[in-house]
Amino acid sequence: MKKILAELLTIGDEILYGQIVDTNSQWMSVELDKIGVKVIRKTTVGDEEQEILTAFAEAEKRADVILITGGLGPTSDDMTKPLLAKYFNCVLDINEEALAEVTEFFKSRGRELTELNRQQAALPKACEKITNPVGTAPGMWFNKGEKVFMSMPGVPHEMKMMMTEQVLPRLTKKYQLPVIHHKVIRTIGVGESFLAEKIADWENSLPSHLKLAYLPSLGEVKLRLTGFGHSLSELERETSEYTEKLKEPAGEYIYGYGETPIEVVIGNTLREKKLTLSIAESCTGGFLSHLMTSVPGSSDYFLGAMIPYAYEIKMRQLGVKPETLEKFGAVSEPTIIEMANIVRAKFNTDIGVATSGIAGPGGATPDKPVGTVWIAYSDKHHTVTKKLQLSKDRMINIRLASMAVLNLIRLSIPE
Amino acid sequence: MKKILAELLTIGDEILYGQIVDTNSQWMSVELDKIGVKVIRKTTVGDEEQEILTAFAEAEKRADVILITGGLGPTSDDMTKPLLAKYFNCVLDINEEALAEVTEFFKSRGRELTELNRQQAALPKACEKITNPVGTAPGMWFNKGEKVFMSMPGVPHEMKMMMTEQVLPRLTKKYQLPVIHHKVIRTIGVGESFLAEKIADWENSLPSHLKLAYLPSLGEVKLRLTGFGHSLSELERETSEYTEKLKEPAGEYIYGYGETPIEVVIGNTLREKKLTLSIAESCTGGFLSHLMTSVPGSSDYFLGAMIPYAYEIKMRQLGVKPETLEKFGAVSEPTIIEMANIVRAKFNTDIGVATSGIAGPGGATPDKPVGTVWIAYSDKHHTVTKKLQLSKDRMINIRLASMAVLNLIRLSIPE
Repeated sequence: MKKILAELLTIGDEILYGQIVDTNSQWMSVELDKIGVKVIRKTTVGDEEQEILTAFAEAEKRADVILITGGLGPTSDDMTKPLLAKYFNCVLDINEEALAEVTEFFKSRGRELTELNRQQAALPKACEKITNPVGTAPGMWFNKGEKVFMSMPGVPHEMKMMMTEQVLPRLTKKYQLPVIHHKVIRTIGVGESFLAEKIADWENSLPSHLKLAYLPSLGEVKLRLTGFGHSLSELERETSEYTEKLKEPAGEYIYGYGETPIEVVIGNTLREKKLTLSIAESCTGGFLSHLMTSVPGSSDYFLGAMIPYAYEIKMRQLGVKPETLEKFGAVSEPTIIEMANIVRAKFNTDIGVATSGIAGPGGATPDKPVGTVWIAYSDKHHTVTKKLQLSKDRMINIRLASMAVLNLIRLSIPE
Repeated sequence: MKKILAELLTIGDEILYGQIVDTNSQWMSVELDKIGVKVIRKTTVGDEEQEILTAFAEAEKRADVILITGGLGPTSDDMTKPLLAKYFNCVLDINEEALAEVTEFFKSRGRELTELNRQQAALPKACEKITNPVGTAPGMWFNKGEKVFMSMPGVPHEMKMMMTEQVLPRLTKKYQLPVIHHKVIRTIGVGESFLAEKIADWENSLPSHLKLAYLPSLGEVKLRLTGFGHSLSELERETSEYTEKLKEPAGEYIYGYGETPIEVVIGNTLREKKLTLSIAESCTGGFLSHLMTSVPGSSDYFLGAMIPYAYEIKMRQLGVKPETLEKFGAVSEPTIIEMANIVRAKFNTDIGVATSGIAGPGGATPDKPVGTVWIAYSDKHHTVTKKLQLSKDRMINIRLASMAVLNLIRLSIPE
């Protein structure tokens, strides 16, 4: 079977000059890898006609699939579309379907179509239009012999939706791709190197056509098991078998599989058990509630939160006892216990959780350095607390503390 | 003056397959831009001999300065060094100074030099060694006519130290570099195409050595004005002049300049004016508070928030009148006004803001489709409300509504 090779071509001065970090190409690499398309090169060029045309021609020589992002905006520095028309030797013409879509896009937002917006519906004659359900710039798919050029907007969520819903399925249909099966095992509450030691024997027992990758991110480590073969059902059976065996050394850390993040897993558990949740978050400043409410349908179990950022609000609005705050401070076990219990009682929920800590960079004391965080879980059966010693970085502390609370809920929720 | 062009070449399967995000090249772009070296291309190739050699040759044709990162580790899949030796037609030989440095590096950590480590001191004869003060792989500088190849480790802090301390000063010395000046103008509350129409005359009046770029992201559009010339003070004067002139067509949207995001600008204003803020956020679910508290020192002005997600919490905890909720619904102007006023009074702050809407995908009614959001601002002088009609996407709605509140604060705060 011939390997299908891809080149990712990013167009835009803003990437070239470093005004934004290109995260698109990493995401695209991962998705292409999953369907068995091999990325052989990533190229970034600026908004310069000759550079772009040369990059098209070079990529065509090297790769079967050329995925282009960027340069599709309505303004004059966006040149991808006219240059694709030039490269494919055709004219730009208003695509009636695209025009209807962009008109509807603006109409649904109560806005009139400007001439600039209208021009977003002009597409090279040689392409097939790919609908952009979340933006105004359509994608363009060009067949050239056995090769494909595909142009997408650089806005990450527009590109991702277009890739997921249309480009990846089309590529899978067009080419005969190898059989690859991925299984992602999600762990929380354990660091990468500690986990690696724990599962070393299991990892060494994997056959050579099953490859393991560690994908650490803030607060969790995903393990990706990739099988290469000819039979999907055989690969599925094998990866399931090894995944099952992993429970012995690492079961306590595994919270789920696949693309489902911890906040969704927790949400599903709460919904199934008909439990409700409230939050009193201080140092996490809203991020923990944001994680919970980023899940569609979270109003089924998340009733609300209080963010008692200031000392007075902790006392007067939430109702932490002044004696507790005075004697132990806001960042202490007695305070965090009261916070979790009070929010649970006030908001009349089954579970209450709380955070209080020094996110940094300011606010540290000799015995409470930056990164000191107390978290608590409370339900009618018990109250559980945990002290965390995190990093010196404010945003990392906010994220790690929020993830730690989600893990605390996972471990403390009644069976 | 001849423009000095650079290509950034990243080597490594881990970047190509998306296992890590390449943040090096963005940092390098920014630093090169500052000294007037123009990055014309970024290329990433994998750990494949022919791919790497071809990339060297292509880059040499295009650029004056070729900056290579990655592939310098001690293991067999790291091929940059032997391939540079091959490309420059010379042998690899132990460099005595590099050997002394790597020996010292291990000695200072109490570790013995292995043969693998010793090989890190083997360098192509044709290069000048560049000391790596924080790692074991030295950098390599190759002159080829007027061109330069420079190879550095892919580990970000090693690369950055090598660039800052040695590569950038050497480039400044070797080439006569032009002067470049950037000015970023930050706007909010206006879409890219509408802004483009508003400022078309201004944009057309720009001299050819001042280039404009639109950098849109969720809820805001940044404009970058880049000047090319010989005198920095002259460019600064010119970009300031044109930035000043931009206030006429677009002043109402401009909230700041440079790298400072809206939440920091709002925070600074609140601190300066000694004003405090509280938030009652429903559909934004914590994200608005998270934006405010992501800023270090935000406890100076942000006292706290309530997230009354459930209907009962809106009534019983926040205190919205049952009549208001029954008659107009949670997503309505009367409710949002009460929410902003009540949180301001309860939390005893100068300003209260509120959000209530249908983030989606569920919860829509015929007259309140997904994306309908009411926001409000309240202080002792006035209460301002705004109805937004956003998108069908939950996360986008959460982000856009939060940004809209920040803009509402900017526009409503007393002089």
